[in-house]
Amino acid sequence: MRHILPLVYKCSIISKPIPFVLNHLKHTHNLPHWGSNKVHRKIKISNPYKDIIMADPKIEEILAPLRAHVKEQGDVVRKLKEEKAPEIDIKKAVAELKSRKKILEDKELSLTPAEELFDRAKMEDLIKRRFFYDQSFAIYGGITGQFDFGPMGCALKSNMIQLWRKYFILQEQMLEVDCSILTPEPVLKASGHVERFADLMTKDVKSGECFRLDHLIKAHLEKIKSEKNAKAELKSEIEDILVKLDGMNADEMSALMKRFDMKSPISGNELTPPIEFNLMFNTQIGPSGLVKGFLRPETAQGIFVNFKRLLEFNQGRLPFAAAQIGNSFRNEISPRSGLLRVREFTMCEIEHFCDSKDHPKFESIKDTQMLLYSADNQEQGKAAEILTIGEAVSKGIVNNETLGYFMARIHLYMLAVGIDPKKLRFRQHMGNEMAHYACDCWDAECLSSYGWIECVGCADRSAYDLTQHTKATGIRLAAEKKLPAPKQIDIVEAVPNKATIGKEFKKDAKLINDALAAMDTAALEQLESELDSNGEYTLTTTKGEFKLTSNLVSVKKSQKTVHVEEIIPSVIEPSFGIGRILYCILEHNFKMREGDEQRTYFSLPATVAPMKCAVLPLSGNVEFQPFVKELSQELIYVDVSHKVDDSSGSIGRRYARTDELGVPYAITVDFDTMKEPHTVTLRERDSMSQVRLPLVDVPTVVRDLANSKISWANVEDKYPKFEQQENVKGAAA
Amino acid sequence: MRHILPLVYKCSIISKPIPFVLNHLKHTHNLPHWGSNKVHRKIKISNPYKDIIMADPKIEEILAPLRAHVKEQGDVVRKLKEEKAPEIDIKKAVAELKSRKKILEDKELSLTPAEELFDRAKMEDLIKRRFFYDQSFAIYGGITGQFDFGPMGCALKSNMIQLWRKYFILQEQMLEVDCSILTPEPVLKASGHVERFADLMTKDVKSGECFRLDHLIKAHLEKIKSEKNAKAELKSEIEDILVKLDGMNADEMSALMKRFDMKSPISGNELTPPIEFNLMFNTQIGPSGLVKGFLRPETAQGIFVNFKRLLEFNQGRLPFAAAQIGNSFRNEISPRSGLLRVREFTMCEIEHFCDSKDHPKFESIKDTQMLLYSADNQEQGKAAEILTIGEAVSKGIVNNETLGYFMARIHLYMLAVGIDPKKLRFRQHMGNEMAHYACDCWDAECLSSYGWIECVGCADRSAYDLTQHTKATGIRLAAEKKLPAPKQIDIVEAVPNKATIGKEFKKDAKLINDALAAMDTAALEQLESELDSNGEYTLTTTKGEFKLTSNLVSVKKSQKTVHVEEIIPSVIEPSFGIGRILYCILEHNFKMREGDEQRTYFSLPATVAPMKCAVLPLSGNVEFQPFVKELSQELIYVDVSHKVDDSSGSIGRRYARTDELGVPYAITVDFDTMKEPHTVTLRERDSMSQVRLPLVDVPTVVRDLANSKISWANVEDKYPKFEQQENVKGAAA
Repeated sequence: MRHILPLVYKCSIISKPIPFVLNHLKHTHNLPHWGSNKVHRKIKISNPYKDIIMADPKIEEILAPLRAHVKEQGDVVRKLKEEKAPEIDIKKAVAELKSRKKILEDKELSLTPAEELFDRAKMEDLIKRRFFYDQSFAIYGGITGQFDFGPMGCALKSNMIQLWRKYFILQEQMLEVDCSILTPEPVLKASGHVERFADLMTKDVKSGECFRLDHLIKAHLEKIKSEKNAKAELKSEIEDILVKLDGMNADEMSALMKRFDMKSPISGNELTPPIEFNLMFNTQIGPSGLVKGFLRPETAQGIFVNFKRLLEFNQGRLPFAAAQIGNSFRNEISPRSGLLRVREFTMCEIEHFCDSKDHPKFESIKDTQMLLYSADNQEQGKAAEILTIGEAVSKGIVNNETLGYFMARIHLYMLAVGIDPKKLRFRQHMGNEMAHYACDCWDAECLSSYGWIECVGCADRSAYDLTQHTKATGIRLAAEKKLPAPKQIDIVEAVPNKATIGKEFKKDAKLINDALAAMDTAALEQLESELDSNGEYTLTTTKGEFKLTSNLVSVKKSQKTVHVEEIIPSVIEPSFGIGRILYCILEHNFKMREGDEQRTYFSLPATVAPMKCAVLPLSGNVEFQPFVKELSQELIYVDVSHKVDDSSGSIGRRYARTDELGVPYAITVDFDTMKEPHTVTLRERDSMSQVRLPLVDVPTVVRDLANSKISWANVEDKYPKFEQQENVKGAAA
Repeated sequence: MRHILPLVYKCSIISKPIPFVLNHLKHTHNLPHWGSNKVHRKIKISNPYKDIIMADPKIEEILAPLRAHVKEQGDVVRKLKEEKAPEIDIKKAVAELKSRKKILEDKELSLTPAEELFDRAKMEDLIKRRFFYDQSFAIYGGITGQFDFGPMGCALKSNMIQLWRKYFILQEQMLEVDCSILTPEPVLKASGHVERFADLMTKDVKSGECFRLDHLIKAHLEKIKSEKNAKAELKSEIEDILVKLDGMNADEMSALMKRFDMKSPISGNELTPPIEFNLMFNTQIGPSGLVKGFLRPETAQGIFVNFKRLLEFNQGRLPFAAAQIGNSFRNEISPRSGLLRVREFTMCEIEHFCDSKDHPKFESIKDTQMLLYSADNQEQGKAAEILTIGEAVSKGIVNNETLGYFMARIHLYMLAVGIDPKKLRFRQHMGNEMAHYACDCWDAECLSSYGWIECVGCADRSAYDLTQHTKATGIRLAAEKKLPAPKQIDIVEAVPNKATIGKEFKKDAKLINDALAAMDTAALEQLESELDSNGEYTLTTTKGEFKLTSNLVSVKKSQKTVHVEEIIPSVIEPSFGIGRILYCILEHNFKMREGDEQRTYFSLPATVAPMKCAVLPLSGNVEFQPFVKELSQELIYVDVSHKVDDSSGSIGRRYARTDELGVPYAITVDFDTMKEPHTVTLRERDSMSQVRLPLVDVPTVVRDLANSKISWANVEDKYPKFEQQENVKGAAA
């Protein structure tokens, strides 16, 4: 089963929320089981894509020539690569391919019927007003790219993280670590961050104000393009430049600055030539000012430098995965787009170390349907397509089972936290986008009002990082694997005469002995042949050359029986940007009540909702108070976060207020509550439907709803519907 | 009931662990309740101090003169304060008081019978070997004062934090926030950190190596003291200096350096005079290099700068508490003592904003017994004493109910995470120790092999922080309180003629208008009288003086009816150092099996134990595998973290291995498991006793044990004891 779909596709406008978490349970819980919880796990799974209809033929007609245009260039790129054409030619062709791809994607998005009205300003107002998050240090004028999470944003974030722990640490039995943020320079030199983790910027020569160079050029050219008297030829040239801008280097951008005579857009002053600006925050560790350190730009390196300890903790066995949840920092030149590009952010990263890329649990998730946008489809002007991950791996679209397994688990996690499956795709990096060490890489992207946003990266990093740290430290970050049968191997080694070397070279002796020990087979052959022929050998070290004679060193050959082989494991790295996912969750769940645009709310899944329920006395009547107090205590006892809203205001207004916070359930204590047996009403946010149930049942019912152990439908089956209109004015205090 | 106790007191060596969490439930759950969980909440509470016997009279006899010595000096200090003697005299007397107090405390500790054998090296070996935590970046040589938490340390820490969330955020309905770590300079200038948050250091003039000055002086003097030919007089003088060192300023320390001719202990080079070294890590925010920022040294300021938003979130009402969990950074000059003094650390901080210091829930915790070491007792040479918090507040030992309430809640939390109540005391800051703005301050201190360690601070900070940020920003951080009755107030204000001022003073006009608006009543009276008499007034601003004539400004007096008054709330601040508590938990729970010193383990409470249970197949028999796999799946379903240990090794050895990790329960799948009805054994770590129970019961039983909803005694009551010796060698694979 395989449907060809446009990037954004029509779907019925109002569709019931899909039971995300139950969906997940099927996938992770595929073993035969026993036990009392059985009944809840049999719930049938909805297909998240069932509402998707086939692409509109009229739209496809418009897109067809654009698709062909992309394909044509994709073929050119492919041919150049096959012919091993000069890199510069391939690069140019790829830039052109990206340009055509962008035109196609923009067209697709513009043709998509506006299925839902989304008003970003309205959502941002709600986020600010109810303090989900807001700019940091606002009373001091604020700092761009830094945000403080208020009670609701903080609870949402913390629930997302707790669920992540459950999905990954607990269910996959990963080893969680918590490593230092301050990182000394050598670590980040080895990882490549000191050298390569930079953006180009330019400075106002007088005021010192900085601009991210690509942003500046883009703004400048767009301004020229929009001028009335701009010639068509110039306009089209600018369009071309704009699409290629992403892949340009410093020289190319510098040329553009000169050609279009760019000045500071603020002061009109001259600008410096492009400057590479490293995005890491630097500081000094310790008081001497001599130990240079950085705030980590990712959490991954903390795991790599602990590889040996973790391997040992896992009793030397592969595969295993380590995970880390924590903050990282990037000194963005010009942060923008709210939570999407910030200076400090929370990441959840996994490093799965393995020697084989098969995965024992692949079978359990192989039928998961996902929207995949392969490199091939991108190059051929085709749309993303829905495939099961099993198909994708067996067809070679996804490189291996382990990568596929994690992609499916990421997909399920994203649905569980409230990402709309119709706005989630996995996009494969094209050959030229990938880091040089990666062998396959897929980004989970969410569609938002800012376009498709990368929220999770899932890369096969091969053995790159461990190899780099091994090189830098001389400590072998490798695992041992038992051989199927013992093996005889030839050993060639340099045997230094340490006493004589010590006498002759004094303080350089250690350096020489280490260099001799580190020689590989080819170097040893060379050593042997030179000692044989000349009686001496010139050893090159980091501190210069040393002449060694036959009395100082010899070459020994022997045989050894080995039972294990040393392997540097491959690494699969799923890396989650929590702030970006959180923002997309808010966008995907921002709703307005039909017929009342002022009543906005967040339809957050109960699992991640900041609070699970509200407790509302119908009015200020003092007789309600003991019930409210007791209920609150009982909810605490079962660990259900909640909010007592005993402020004045009609019950309808207070429901609206809890809806704004995304609280999924509301319990109302009213006059009937005081009668025995005590009962209350329970209201569900999205449907606004209500039931009446015994007070004693409430804590466990809400807890089970919040943990997705039961559904609202189960509750409606069990308890009588409560019909009173929530807007009845007479109910107010 | 009030016992006088020595600081460290005898107790029976082996005492049953106290059911900490159940203890807590009583205190927090004192309301009448209903519901199905009732039965579990009726468990009787042990008194944590019941094993404490009275102080040994012989020891007290030895201590008596030392106590008198302290009291004598305490009286001197008191008298000087009463007489308002010069500050320098008081300071000297306090230093002497501290010196005497230290001698008393050291004696007390030395006389305490070694009730338990604690071997720090052995514990540190276990911590390292099983990767609870270890030095960061060790493969790069490591950085002092930075630690990485491995899987066990990370899980312990994360469970401590989750329980903290339950105790404080959930049970106290606090507003949790998550604010930026990078903080711009003006914020930390206002809070006083830029100016005052510093330690004294000295540098090797040649190598630039830095030493914390007090540490250097201490080491130098101790060396002199220990020299064979040191004279008794010099020795006693040095002893005296050592105790006073803590309170010395830069000049006093500089004098000591000169007098004892101190050089670098490493190179022998000259040292610089004392340098104030600010402990905050600095960096630049943004690419210009112009925005100076620091890594926050505490999380509290993030809450203060968000006060207005939080107050609004709480619908303008006081009291409310905000809380934050996150990392802070201090660039220690010479970190030491493992986790106790580090450069980055996790804090949990609460800021409770209130206008009255009574607490509505004080009644619920007033009978909590705690070991209190009041400032008075410290000054009078008396020991700490056990009091209920109710008594302490009513006697005025603890300043107010709100402070007392939080102290009791801190006490209960500390017991719940596994702190030994007999090694926990609350020490009150003496007058001269307190920050100038604080009105009362108590530290929760834990006794460890490093002495008494401050783990939680609980300070009444009054209105200091909000006032400081108000001053710095001009934004009033205050709440409004409804008056009991409307009030007529007199208003005096300066009325500037803005148009004329604008014309006359151009760009300074705003400055002048702002200065006029900020004038207080006294200044306004002055303005009025000078305008009346001279027709002009000299206004002093930050940018100099301005002459204002009557045509530019007048004074208006009027009356206004007000319904609310503005108040700047007081702040009670409990501040938890998670790493320090974690270290003390490990020390307090490090145990050796009787008669086998090699079998060490951590008797961690199940609530915080890194994993709740181990699943062990008795041997490598393949028929055990499906049961192990299913059990693991079922445990995942009920969110119980666990470890499957199917490695080879006898079952006894594997039990010992899980004991080392502090895993409280172990489930063993054996040959009887395969018979219907399927059963397994469940073993409790501390008692090593076992029961046999149906496989289907296991997940919920372990979950309820881990959540402290049931006790091991309940399990033993319900299921038959399993008697097989765990060391039977034949059981191994």
